Amino acid sequence: MDKYPSQLLSRAVEEFGKLPGVGSKTALRLVLHMLRQEKDRVQSFADAITHLCNEVKYCLVCHNISDHDICTICSDPRRDATTVCVVENIQDVMAIEHTQSYHGLYHVLGGVISPMEGVGPSDLQIQSLVDRVGEGVVKEVILALSPTMEGDTTNFYIFRKLADADVVISVIARGIAQNDELQYTDEITLGRSIINRTPFKK
Amino acid sequence: MDKYPSQLLSRAVEEFGKLPGVGSKTALRLVLHMLRQEKDRVQSFADAITHLCNEVKYCLVCHNISDHDICTICSDPRRDATTVCVVENIQDVMAIEHTQSYHGLYHVLGGVISPMEGVGPSDLQIQSLVDRVGEGVVKEVILALSPTMEGDTTNFYIFRKLADADVVISVIARGIAQNDELQYTDEITLGRSIINRTPFKK
Repeated sequence: MDKYPSQLLSRAVEEFGKLPGVGSKTALRLVLHMLRQEKDRVQSFADAITHLCNEVKYCLVCHNISDHDICTICSDPRRDATTVCVVENIQDVMAIEHTQSYHGLYHVLGGVISPMEGVGPSDLQIQSLVDRVGEGVVKEVILALSPTMEGDTTNFYIFRKLADADVVISVIARGIAQNDELQYTDEITLGRSIINRTPFKK
Repeated sequence: MDKYPSQLLSRAVEEFGKLPGVGSKTALRLVLHMLRQEKDRVQSFADAITHLCNEVKYCLVCHNISDHDICTICSDPRRDATTVCVVENIQDVMAIEHTQSYHGLYHVLGGVISPMEGVGPSDLQIQSLVDRVGEGVVKEVILALSPTMEGDTTNFYIFRKLADADVVISVIARGIAQNDELQYTDEITLGRSIINRTPFKK
């Protein structure tokens, strides 16, 4: 007997098992869950995935996922079009939106420069950022990339690319996180948090 | 802004979020993973699910998932057709097959009697088991259901249904598991393991 009693089952488990973080046992559990569903619910599941992948659009301005050519953030007149926050991916946009602390626009790079993974500047939306800044509306570019070597490399690359442009370039603050314990914070973060200390606000 | 920047994305995340054990963050991660795949790979994923759910068959004899009317186990002449092991679901069949300790056939009930979840005997493949035993080939029925109240109830129900049939009815051994620590084993299991002690084999 093969591992699974049916080829159809085996194929479905294999497909589910390709998802990140899903092993063969979880895949089997998910597939058997699908099997217990009504057929139209399964169809609806399959349709949602294929529709998304076939019809997905990316905002022509910020490259965030969007249902239209221009996303809801870029087309919102209440948002501050003079500020652009550069992020790696759409999860980061959602995370920053969730804070309700930012009212400018975004620019989704689609990753960071990573020679190890074969990602160069041309694979990212860096030139389109330079072009966007060149249009003259943007006054500040906030770099909000991962605090990693790749993120820092990308920050520096963008900084150099925008060196001649008339914009303020800032980087999101790095320091100790809310509720972190000082004694367990790594040296680089703790060192930076002292160097970049901010005036105490009463 | 809505929670997600796109309705298509939102719908796909919602569908993935319906899977057991998948929250909205995991769902988003899975959906964005799909988005990064080639379109034909996504189609292949969706097809595997819909094909399975539309074309799945269950063995007419043992009710295990199968590609044919009779499954590979039931149609295998090398297997002992006089012994039938009664299990809840196909994962249990796979688990027992994996032990390579059993060479008889199976009977997949599709669950256990559970008044709490509204599962009665008629929702399970119990009558078909009685009919199957009634054909006279089966000499032993091994009950291999969960060691829970529902499993015990189902065991007892099947036992009574088969009371008049000329078959041996056995239940898989309950006792301490390999590598379990005696002191942390629950009282019922430990008590049973002493009562049901087996002769020491040299």
